[in-house]
Amino acid sequence: MTATIHKIGGHQVPSLDPILKLVAPGMNKVNAVILDRMQSEIPLIPELAGHLIAGGGKRMRPMLTLACAQLLNYPGDRHHKLAAAVEFIHTATLLHDDVVDEAPERRGFLSVYALWKTKASVLAGDYLLAKGLLLSLENKDFRVLELLSDAVRRMSEGELLQLEKSSLLNITEEDYFSIISNKTASLLASACAAGAYTVNQDEKQVDLLRQFGENTGIAFQIKDDLFDYGTDDVGKPTGNDIREKKLTLPLIFTLKSVPKETRRFLLYTIK
Amino acid sequence: MTATIHKIGGHQVPSLDPILKLVAPGMNKVNAVILDRMQSEIPLIPELAGHLIAGGGKRMRPMLTLACAQLLNYPGDRHHKLAAAVEFIHTATLLHDDVVDEAPERRGFLSVYALWKTKASVLAGDYLLAKGLLLSLENKDFRVLELLSDAVRRMSEGELLQLEKSSLLNITEEDYFSIISNKTASLLASACAAGAYTVNQDEKQVDLLRQFGENTGIAFQIKDDLFDYGTDDVGKPTGNDIREKKLTLPLIFTLKSVPKETRRFLLYTIK
Repeated sequence: MTATIHKIGGHQVPSLDPILKLVAPGMNKVNAVILDRMQSEIPLIPELAGHLIAGGGKRMRPMLTLACAQLLNYPGDRHHKLAAAVEFIHTATLLHDDVVDEAPERRGFLSVYALWKTKASVLAGDYLLAKGLLLSLENKDFRVLELLSDAVRRMSEGELLQLEKSSLLNITEEDYFSIISNKTASLLASACAAGAYTVNQDEKQVDLLRQFGENTGIAFQIKDDLFDYGTDDVGKPTGNDIREKKLTLPLIFTLKSVPKETRRFLLYTIK
Repeated sequence: MTATIHKIGGHQVPSLDPILKLVAPGMNKVNAVILDRMQSEIPLIPELAGHLIAGGGKRMRPMLTLACAQLLNYPGDRHHKLAAAVEFIHTATLLHDDVVDEAPERRGFLSVYALWKTKASVLAGDYLLAKGLLLSLENKDFRVLELLSDAVRRMSEGELLQLEKSSLLNITEEDYFSIISNKTASLLASACAAGAYTVNQDEKQVDLLRQFGENTGIAFQIKDDLFDYGTDDVGKPTGNDIREKKLTLPLIFTLKSVPKETRRFLLYTIK
């Protein structure tokens, strides 16, 4: 496998292409499970889910589930269902996030929230959450179910902590890491651990891949928060975080290093 | 056990008191589990959950779980955790319902939605949902987890069907029963079935109690929908359903039995 180099802004970063290639056959099967399971007698459900799930996205989390299972030379196919469950849970949280953030757009398209409003977004999120958990139940594996349910708990806990801190503007570096590790890294960690656990129940090995997922998630979120300050032109809108009073790492570092009056001025401006 | 008679409006209905007495010792243990498990390092969580869970409510669903287990002479204590899980899941759906209905009140107090707004209600609902499923996972019982996750799926499906129908005003009696059996009866059915399953894995027996819960739920929702038309003075606000374009049984029957012009006038007024 040759490492491909990719340019974002002024920086050279390794491309995801080799991983994409490695998991592509598996991802075709995952996508087939997703399409099959988002059917429902209620037309609104496949319509909403299709807008989001079929509408693209990087599929980073299910890819990690597959990659971790493949890393341990898994010969079976239980990980396809599991990866689809991870994507369902992720999509559910996106639907709820858009309501929470009142986001008009998602992935360059109108968000479900903008198109169908709060009601449908909240309910379709609950529906996909339940579907994801039911799908992972089919493998009859308690540890995996625990990993996924715990990720759901941690994601909402992280968002609630962020909400609590944003109203007070008193966030520390420690708070920030607690927030992003819960709201973002937890599902990536569980996606990796679940993939590993499907192959091998050795808790030490599972935990190593869980940590890999957790750290990948933290790195991903720091980078995403930097993009919001326009550090690299990746085609994402900027300035949203500061408008929503989300104090992320760049601002936390700035507030720590500027003189007292500048700090007061900045906080006053944000408020 | 003597049957107590109770008056609601002009009607005599059997009181729940004998059942309350029967499950009271168990309910004390369930309440202890609920209080213990709604703790979190994030102050907002026990604050929100406390407002709803400690704020009263009939605890009908966990009582049914206990009653079904006791009916089968259960000697153990696994049903306490399970009943608490059922109440967590129910509370999660209440939080999301209040967002969906933009409800200013719940049980005579300001709703969490009115106090903390959409963000906290959606997130705290997700949190309680995950906590409920994690709690039921502790008993390591796939069938029970399946029953509860399936209730979550059915509840959101029922609400989505209601949403879809309310925008078109073309609801039939069949649709109505499909909506209430999903949105209301499903969790009562699962609460009963889960209680029964904890004692005895005979699927036939479990299914009988599941049906009992389902029918109780359907009866409960029909009655609740009648209250909205002020049929009995039970201290509940009236007229909400028609304002929210929720076409329930009284109106469905009316629309079916009136002349064409009256029907057209009524639909025009609602719209």
